[in-house]
Amino acid sequence: MNAVGLLAFAVVGSLRAVDADLDALGVVVLGVMTALGGGVTRDLLVNATPAALRTTSDVTVALVGVGLGVALARAGAPGDLTDRSVVLLPDAVGLSAFATTGALVATDANLSPFGVVLLATVTGVGGGLIGDLLLRTVPSVLVEDFYATPAIVGGATFWTLAVVGVPDQRAAVVCAAVVLGLRLTAIRRGWELPSP
Amino acid sequence: MNAVGLLAFAVVGSLRAVDADLDALGVVVLGVMTALGGGVTRDLLVNATPAALRTTSDVTVALVGVGLGVALARAGAPGDLTDRSVVLLPDAVGLSAFATTGALVATDANLSPFGVVLLATVTGVGGGLIGDLLLRTVPSVLVEDFYATPAIVGGATFWTLAVVGVPDQRAAVVCAAVVLGLRLTAIRRGWELPSP
Amino acid sequence: MNAVGLLAFAVVGSLRAVDADLDALGVVVLGVMTALGGGVTRDLLVNATPAALRTTSDVTVALVGVGLGVALARAGAPGDLTDRSVVLLPDAVGLSAFATTGALVATDANLSPFGVVLLATVTGVGGGLIGDLLLRTVPSVLVEDFYATPAIVGGATFWTLAVVGVPDQRAAVVCAAVVLGLRLTAIRRGWELPSP
Repeated sequence: MNAVGLLAFAVVGSLRAVDADLDALGVVVLGVMTALGGGVTRDLLVNATPAALRTTSDVTVALVGVGLGVALARAGAPGDLTDRSVVLLPDAVGLSAFATTGALVATDANLSPFGVVLLATVTGVGGGLIGDLLLRTVPSVLVEDFYATPAIVGGATFWTLAVVGVPDQRAAVVCAAVVLGLRLTAIRRGWELPSP
Repeated sequence: MNAVGLLAFAVVGSLRAVDADLDALGVVVLGVMTALGGGVTRDLLVNATPAALRTTSDVTVALVGVGLGVALARAGAPGDLTDRSVVLLPDAVGLSAFATTGALVATDANLSPFGVVLLATVTGVGGGLIGDLLLRTVPSVLVEDFYATPAIVGGATFWTLAVVGVPDQRAAVVCAAVVLGLRLTAIRRGWELPSP
Repeated sequence: MNAVGLLAFAVVGSLRAVDADLDALGVVVLGVMTALGGGVTRDLLVNATPAALRTTSDVTVALVGVGLGVALARAGAPGDLTDRSVVLLPDAVGLSAFATTGALVATDANLSPFGVVLLATVTGVGGGLIGDLLLRTVPSVLVEDFYATPAIVGGATFWTLAVVGVPDQRAAVVCAAVVLGLRLTAIRRGWELPSP
């Protein structure tokens, strides 16, 4: 599940980098940081050495994703690829996968309910946020439609299920389904949050 | 004292978010991150799991602050609220409270004198800096008047008192008073640092 | 070697801050954060309390560098100092020194090959990247010529040498020479990476 998220976010990050006319290294850096950023932030917040630095598998998957992203960009769907379903779908899968690993890690670390929700959210949106900062675009999580909300709802769902005694594995499946379902529905229906 | 800072910074952050026309979630995210950002950075720098993730109280206070900020914005003082005393005063209190907790945590962790000053400063200005980055405004700590300086002086004061044997509790009170006094005087007199 | 990097990066950071018309504190903050940012990020990634906060020597060196930078700016070479050899040379030395300490720390922490390369790169370019974010310029590591690449190659070289049994001290010397040589050649020849 983590691998799906890594692959999806690396594709999204590298497509955005190609759109922004970065050089070859910039594309790799943005793709890899979008893929690994959420997980590294998650591990730092619970004081673990980031998994991405201890193993080689995570970065390998991210690099494959970058290759895929560059191939997609070359295959040449014109215009802003990041609004197309070829990007939105894997991005939603990545959000769902990462929000769930965040909730799992938070529960293992005995964080508070808010800690579980926050770690799910940070893990899900952290990579994209780092990409936003590097590309100097307004972080989409702040101004855009229904993006972080599914991760927040998923984290809260996971925590509720864990409290009433549902095993972590099953809670994780439900959490992932909730995030993915909410995000895809939000895309299809164009859901937006109201301004206060 | 920590609670006062959390509340004040959440009000400031959410007011800024409303001014920037963020949606409902963006207002909550900016308010909560402005409130918790300094403390989370502080805890990460001394390798502790952030208090904000282990307890529920911190985020609860921050959410109350966001509610207050939105209510203030709706009550509708026109124009840029962030320059008005309704914001500047709680902001100064938050700076003072957070700089002091930073100095306390740094002393407990046996950091060097510079470590004490830096942790006081980072805890005090970190939340606002994160808000600046997210809203893509020039970080006020870099270009503006006398904002980080009170935190730096407060941290140095705390360390000096601790070295000459003053108990931590008393040093903390002096540190908080120094930061608050300096910041309020700077606002009233329009103090600025010279350019080199 | 670490001291050389600290000094060089503090000079570069404070020159950039003077160019950007920051006030006195802003110059100190940007100089110190450019100098310490890479190392602090490195230590956080391996879960160590940052050396810069435990000792006083690092910040002292950084402050000397800031003083030097301000003196250079006052001595008044006109125009954009950051493109001149008085900046590019120490900057290349700093990149080389920091990339090498990053590789050493990563090897001590038993990170994966990717972890070694990433820590070398982050330590080398992290301080400059933080400066870029604070000054709101497009991170040079993303759009510019051959800057992060030498650090990446150096980290990979270090890891390869360590694997075949070369002692760390000797591998460090080779790593530093590779980074410095590549970076200086890139500057002289105007090397650029292709866009994909």
